[in-house]
Amino acid sequence: MTIDADELERELRADITPEDTKRISAILEEQPLPEVIRLVERTSATRAAVLFRLLSKDRALTVFEALDAAHQADLIGALHGDEVVGFFEEMDPDDRVTLLDELPAKVADELLRGLTKDEREMTGTVLGYPKGSIGRRMSPEIAILRGDMTVGQAMDILHRKADTMETIYSLPIVNSTRKLVGMCSFRDLFRADPKVRLASIMEEAFSANANDDAEETARWLLALNYLGMPITDDENRLVGLLTFDDAHEIVEDADTEDAARGGGHEPLNQPYLSTPLGKIVRSRIIWLLVLALSAILTVRVLDSFEDTLSKAVVLALFIPLLTGTGGNTGNQAATTVTRAIALGDVERRDALRVAWREARVGFFLGALLGTIGFILATAVYEFHIGLVIGLTLLAVCTMAATVGGIMPIIAKAVGADPAVFSNPFISTFCDATGLLIYFAIAKAILGI
Amino acid sequence: MTIDADELERELRADITPEDTKRISAILEEQPLPEVIRLVERTSATRAAVLFRLLSKDRALTVFEALDAAHQADLIGALHGDEVVGFFEEMDPDDRVTLLDELPAKVADELLRGLTKDEREMTGTVLGYPKGSIGRRMSPEIAILRGDMTVGQAMDILHRKADTMETIYSLPIVNSTRKLVGMCSFRDLFRADPKVRLASIMEEAFSANANDDAEETARWLLALNYLGMPITDDENRLVGLLTFDDAHEIVEDADTEDAARGGGHEPLNQPYLSTPLGKIVRSRIIWLLVLALSAILTVRVLDSFEDTLSKAVVLALFIPLLTGTGGNTGNQAATTVTRAIALGDVERRDALRVAWREARVGFFLGALLGTIGFILATAVYEFHIGLVIGLTLLAVCTMAATVGGIMPIIAKAVGADPAVFSNPFISTFCDATGLLIYFAIAKAILGI
Repeated sequence: MTIDADELERELRADITPEDTKRISAILEEQPLPEVIRLVERTSATRAAVLFRLLSKDRALTVFEALDAAHQADLIGALHGDEVVGFFEEMDPDDRVTLLDELPAKVADELLRGLTKDEREMTGTVLGYPKGSIGRRMSPEIAILRGDMTVGQAMDILHRKADTMETIYSLPIVNSTRKLVGMCSFRDLFRADPKVRLASIMEEAFSANANDDAEETARWLLALNYLGMPITDDENRLVGLLTFDDAHEIVEDADTEDAARGGGHEPLNQPYLSTPLGKIVRSRIIWLLVLALSAILTVRVLDSFEDTLSKAVVLALFIPLLTGTGGNTGNQAATTVTRAIALGDVERRDALRVAWREARVGFFLGALLGTIGFILATAVYEFHIGLVIGLTLLAVCTMAATVGGIMPIIAKAVGADPAVFSNPFISTFCDATGLLIYFAIAKAILGI
Repeated sequence: MTIDADELERELRADITPEDTKRISAILEEQPLPEVIRLVERTSATRAAVLFRLLSKDRALTVFEALDAAHQADLIGALHGDEVVGFFEEMDPDDRVTLLDELPAKVADELLRGLTKDEREMTGTVLGYPKGSIGRRMSPEIAILRGDMTVGQAMDILHRKADTMETIYSLPIVNSTRKLVGMCSFRDLFRADPKVRLASIMEEAFSANANDDAEETARWLLALNYLGMPITDDENRLVGLLTFDDAHEIVEDADTEDAARGGGHEPLNQPYLSTPLGKIVRSRIIWLLVLALSAILTVRVLDSFEDTLSKAVVLALFIPLLTGTGGNTGNQAATTVTRAIALGDVERRDALRVAWREARVGFFLGALLGTIGFILATAVYEFHIGLVIGLTLLAVCTMAATVGGIMPIIAKAVGADPAVFSNPFISTFCDATGLLIYFAIAKAILGI
C-alpha cells in the first residue's frame, strides 16, 4: 500500500469521511517521519489538525516538536484541549517557553496550570529571563556533577538521570556551591579511568550569562563546534545548558528574520504554504506603507526641479537607471555589513573602518560604471549628457556604498535591527539623495 | 597582566619587534579562545600569520579549524609550508576537502602528498563525490557496528576507536554486508543491558545518499534535531556520517550566500574585516554591471514615451515612487519565496499555488496603496493625475508580487540559484514593466 506524497496530499485536501480514516491512518503510519512533517508544513492549520488525529501518539508528538513555534501556536488553536495538553506536557521546558511566547496569555496560563509542579517550576525558571536572552532558550534539566566526584560516580548519576536530561554528552562541572569550574564531554568520561576525579580531566568551560543575548551566544557555541554551553547566573552558578540543536534553531530564526527584513517585510515564522493569506498581507503592509510614504520625498525633490526637467526632458530618461544603480550599490554594502554584524564580524567600534573601506569600494565601482555610462550616453545623446551621467554615477556609487555600509552599524548602535535599516530604506534614501546629486550636476554642466 | 581586546588588536596592528614576541605570546595564551578567534577574523592574512606563530600549537590548531575555508585558504598563502602541513594533518577529512576546494590545484596536491596513506585514502573517499553533494561533507571515520553484536561488544569497539571518530554519539548499525539497517544513539547504548543485541534496541535510520544535495540533507538533519545522519551509497551500504556541526556549517554558508545574492553580490565566504578590498570589489562589480546594463531597458522605455513626458512633465515626478513601490512589493514576494525554497517549504510543483497566493496578496496591497495614492495625488495635483497614480499602484503591485513570487521558482526549475533571480533582478524587471503600465494608463486617462 505505497502511495506517493503528492497523492496523499491530494487525499488530505479533500474532505476525509469516517470510512477513509482507518485507511489514511495506516498510510500515514507507513510514511517516513520527514514526509509527514513536510505534509503538515504544507497544510493549513484546520486540515493539519485532522491529520494529527490520524497519527499515532508518539509520531504526532515528534512531528509537533519539529514545527516552528508560531506554527505550533496556530495549530493549538485548531486542536482539541486535551490533545494540546498532551503535547505540551511532553515538550522540553525551553521549547515550551518559546511556544508560550506565541500564544494568547489566556491559553498560555491554562496550559501552564495543566503541568505537574516540577515541570511548572522548570518552565518558570526559563520564563524568568528576559525575552531575547539565552536564559529563555537554555535547558534547565541538567545533572549536578562536582569536580570532587570520581568518573565512576558521575557515570552512575548520568545512568539514573539519562531519561530526563536533554543531553548527556556535554557536561558542566561545578564546585560545592554550584559555581561553574569546568566542563567535560561524555567522550572524555568514557575514555577516563573510573577512579579519577572529574577535576583532573575537566577542561576550561566557556559559559554565557543567562541574561546574554540569545543569538550572539548561540553563534559562539556553533562557531566553536560545541555540543553544549553552560549557562550561569551573575554569581557564576550553573543554571542551565544551551544545546547545539536549540542554538541552531535560534540562529536559523534570526537568519530568517534578517532575510525577511532585508526584503522589506516581517518574517512569517512558519512555513509559507501553511500561512493564512491575511498573515502574509500583515507581514508586508506596514513596511510598504512606510516605504511608499518615504518615497514621497523623491516626488518632492523632483517637484523642485520641475523647471529644469521641462527644459531638458532627456534628463527624466535616466532617473530609474541612476536611482536603481545607487540603490543596488547601497544594498550591496548594506547586506554585506548586516550579515557581518549578524555573524559578529563587525562591531560598533568598527564604524569608521567600515565607512573608509566602503567609500573606497564605492569610488572604484563608481569610476568604472561612470566611465561606461559616459561613453554610452555620449555616443547615443551628446557629450554634456554623457558627462552628467558619468559624474553622477561616480558620486552616487561612492555615496551609496558609504551610507549603505554605515547605516546598519548606526541601526545596531541605537538598538534597532540592522536589517530594518539596510536594504529597503537604503534604496529610498539613495533615490532621494541620488536625485539631488543628479540635478545639481546637471544644472552645473548644462547651465540650466 | 590582563589586557583588553582593543589594546591587543592595536598592538598586533603595529609592527611586532622580536623583543615583544614573548610578551605578546604570553598575553595571547591568557586570552579565552573565542577572543583569539575573533582577533584572527578581524585581521588581514599577513598579520594573522604572525599571530599564529605566537600561539601554542594546540591553540593555533583549534583557532585554524574554527575559520571559514576561504579564510583558511587565504592564511595558507601567508603561512610557512611546515606550519601548513601541521594544520592539514590534524584536520578532519571532510574539513580538509572543503579547504582543498578553495586552494590552487598545485598547493592542494602538495598538501595531499604530505598525508599518511590512511589519511590520504580517507580524504580521497570524500573527494570522490561531486561538488555540492553531501558525500563531500560527511565524515568517513565511522565505527562498523553490526546488528548481531551485543551492546557490550559495541562499547568495546567504541572504547578503542573513540580517539579517531568524529563522534561516538550517533551510531549507524549495519548488517554483515555493511548495509544500513538501523541507528542508535550512544545514550540508548548507555542505558541498555550490555548483553542485548544492537538489533533489538536500534531504531529506524533516516539516511541520505552520498550524492544527495548537501544543503537539503543538512537542513533535514537539523530539522529533525539529530546529532548525526548515516550516509550510504547506491546499494545502501554505509559510507559515512554527517554530523550536526558540519550540517550547521553547510546551512550557514548557504544562508550567507543567499543573503549576499539577495543583496546583489557574491558572498565573501570570510569575515568582512579580514577580506582584502580587491576581493570585495570583485564580489560586486559583475552584478552591478549586469544590473546597470539591464536598467538601460528603462531608459529605452522612457525614451519611447518622451513625447508624452514633454506634454505632461508632472508624470516624471512620480517615476521613482512608482518604480520603487513596484520593486519593494516584488522584493517582498521574492524574498519570502526564496527563503521558503531554501527551507524546503516550497517546491517546483507549487508554482501555480504560489502565483495565485501572491496575485491575491499583491492585489490587496495594491488596492490599499492605490487608494491612498489616489487621495494624495488628487489633493496635491488633480483628479486625473490621482486616478493615474492610483490605478498604476494597483496594477504594479499585483504584477510585482506575482512575478516576484514565481521568479525564484522558475530560477530553481532551470537549475539557477533562486536568490540570483530574486531581489535585484525583480527590481529592474519591475522598473521597466511598471513604467510601461504607468504610461499606458496615463495615455488612456489623460488622452495624450
